[in-house]
Amino acid sequence: MNTQRRWQAEVDILIPFHDLDPMEVVWHGNYARYFEIARCALLQQIDYDYPQMRDSGYMWPVVEMSQHFVRPLRYQQTIRVAAEIIEWENRLKIRYVIRDATTGDRITRGYTVQVAVHAGTMEMRFISPAILFEKLGLEPPCDA
Amino acid sequence: MNTQRRWQAEVDILIPFHDLDPMEVVWHGNYARYFEIARCALLQQIDYDYPQMRDSGYMWPVVEMSQHFVRPLRYQQTIRVAAEIIEWENRLKIRYVIRDATTGDRITRGYTVQVAVHAGTMEMRFISPAILFEKLGLEPPCDA
Amino acid sequence: MNTQRRWQAEVDILIPFHDLDPMEVVWHGNYARYFEIARCALLQQIDYDYPQMRDSGYMWPVVEMSQHFVRPLRYQQTIRVAAEIIEWENRLKIRYVIRDATTGDRITRGYTVQVAVHAGTMEMRFISPAILFEKLGLEPPCDA
Amino acid sequence: MNTQRRWQAEVDILIPFHDLDPMEVVWHGNYARYFEIARCALLQQIDYDYPQMRDSGYMWPVVEMSQHFVRPLRYQQTIRVAAEIIEWENRLKIRYVIRDATTGDRITRGYTVQVAVHAGTMEMRFISPAILFEKLGLEPPCDA
Repeated sequence: MNTQRRWQAEVDILIPFHDLDPMEVVWHGNYARYFEIARCALLQQIDYDYPQMRDSGYMWPVVEMSQHFVRPLRYQQTIRVAAEIIEWENRLKIRYVIRDATTGDRITRGYTVQVAVHAGTMEMRFISPAILFEKLGLEPPCDA
Repeated sequence: MNTQRRWQAEVDILIPFHDLDPMEVVWHGNYARYFEIARCALLQQIDYDYPQMRDSGYMWPVVEMSQHFVRPLRYQQTIRVAAEIIEWENRLKIRYVIRDATTGDRITRGYTVQVAVHAGTMEMRFISPAILFEKLGLEPPCDA
Repeated sequence: MNTQRRWQAEVDILIPFHDLDPMEVVWHGNYARYFEIARCALLQQIDYDYPQMRDSGYMWPVVEMSQHFVRPLRYQQTIRVAAEIIEWENRLKIRYVIRDATTGDRITRGYTVQVAVHAGTMEMRFISPAILFEKLGLEPPCDA
Repeated sequence: MNTQRRWQAEVDILIPFHDLDPMEVVWHGNYARYFEIARCALLQQIDYDYPQMRDSGYMWPVVEMSQHFVRPLRYQQTIRVAAEIIEWENRLKIRYVIRDATTGDRITRGYTVQVAVHAGTMEMRFISPAILFEKLGLEPPCDA
């Protein structure tokens, strides 16, 4: 089984007018939304998106985000946002690449890191809870 | 007692760069945020802002919003947003006027309408609940 | 020729997480973005979207927006946003209806009004310029 | 002369309702706006904010942004956002710290990197242009 495939997702987004700034390019703060749309598509593939996270008794706040803006984005450009899980044992790290959907030119790359926080105690987990390993089809470590 | 004073609020806002669109004016969809900042300041004055609404067992979704954009807004302009409660018996209607804080020129006017929805039954109220009248310092109607 | 078809457009939108508020429904201010995505799709059909407007020497600021929020929107719901031009002679008025894409339930209705402003003189037009009539495939009035 | 003082700025921001997500904390993507408000205040102090950048013939797009989210932010919390220029020779790097304005607890830290792009040729500068050094009250390097 090619588990790699399950931990990747791609979404296409058409850049809307309201994402542009006075330089007529997408304002840098809007890319967090593009990342999130791809991240949620990815998490839905493993059946562990926001509603399932909540039902599992954990919140997974984003504790770190990094973005490199390589090329500007313009009105009506279509982008392909790829998201891939690259860490899961202690925290959930997802890597993103945004490309022009037509030319394949790389526009932006970055990552987010999320950690599990127990919804009852509000305690942060230093090892990902067993539920994440299950959703990924993996054996949880004995201390998860 | 001048109850009028309690049902009005004003806030000043400095227009940030990220609210501008390619025409170098504030994108029209951002005014809903300016309205909300003034609305919340007003509702805090009567001690019935979002947290108190929730504690009272009611949600008050915005069911109607209307906006007239009279003049454009530019970067670093300071606006004064005035909010005033103009209906409360059956629904909460708030009127807004946005002026340039320096010149007093009228920029935008509009209103929002909110209705009470019981958080348990999700039923919409056609008469505002007694708690709103209390917060306004008014005698509730016998059927509230 | 069925000109009606040319003056209508529909777009489907999947509600993203970042559009939700603490009540777990779409925050009312975000609907302006849904309206705009449908409006731009409509204006592209008549080849008179934002870039063509600018090239024609006119800006078309939104001077009025009205919205009725009939039902709430939740995470991952897919909406169908329909936009239709209903006035053009003196101003461009577009009507919107948002429905659940699956059930057809009406979620929101509203309209926007835009007026032509000459980019050089910044003067507002009280009769739409000839270019709009041309784009609509109509004979411009003698005073346009 | 204490040049350090000129290259720092602080702004206070009251967290508005529309910045919250379903977990009732500020959605991580909104912090880019808090950073920007402090960055613009800082750039105004050296008279080289967005309008002056444009007049100087350079755009300064954000090419990198990194954020660590240490603590969540809740409704009506007041934050103090500090911005400080920490690199300028080849690129403009600004460091940010967000603290609770009352308790001083650290909420978020991060940085942005901007590079000069000549507005005419659209060429990226690998050494900051002389105008930035002038605005900072520094002698430009001979190759600036």
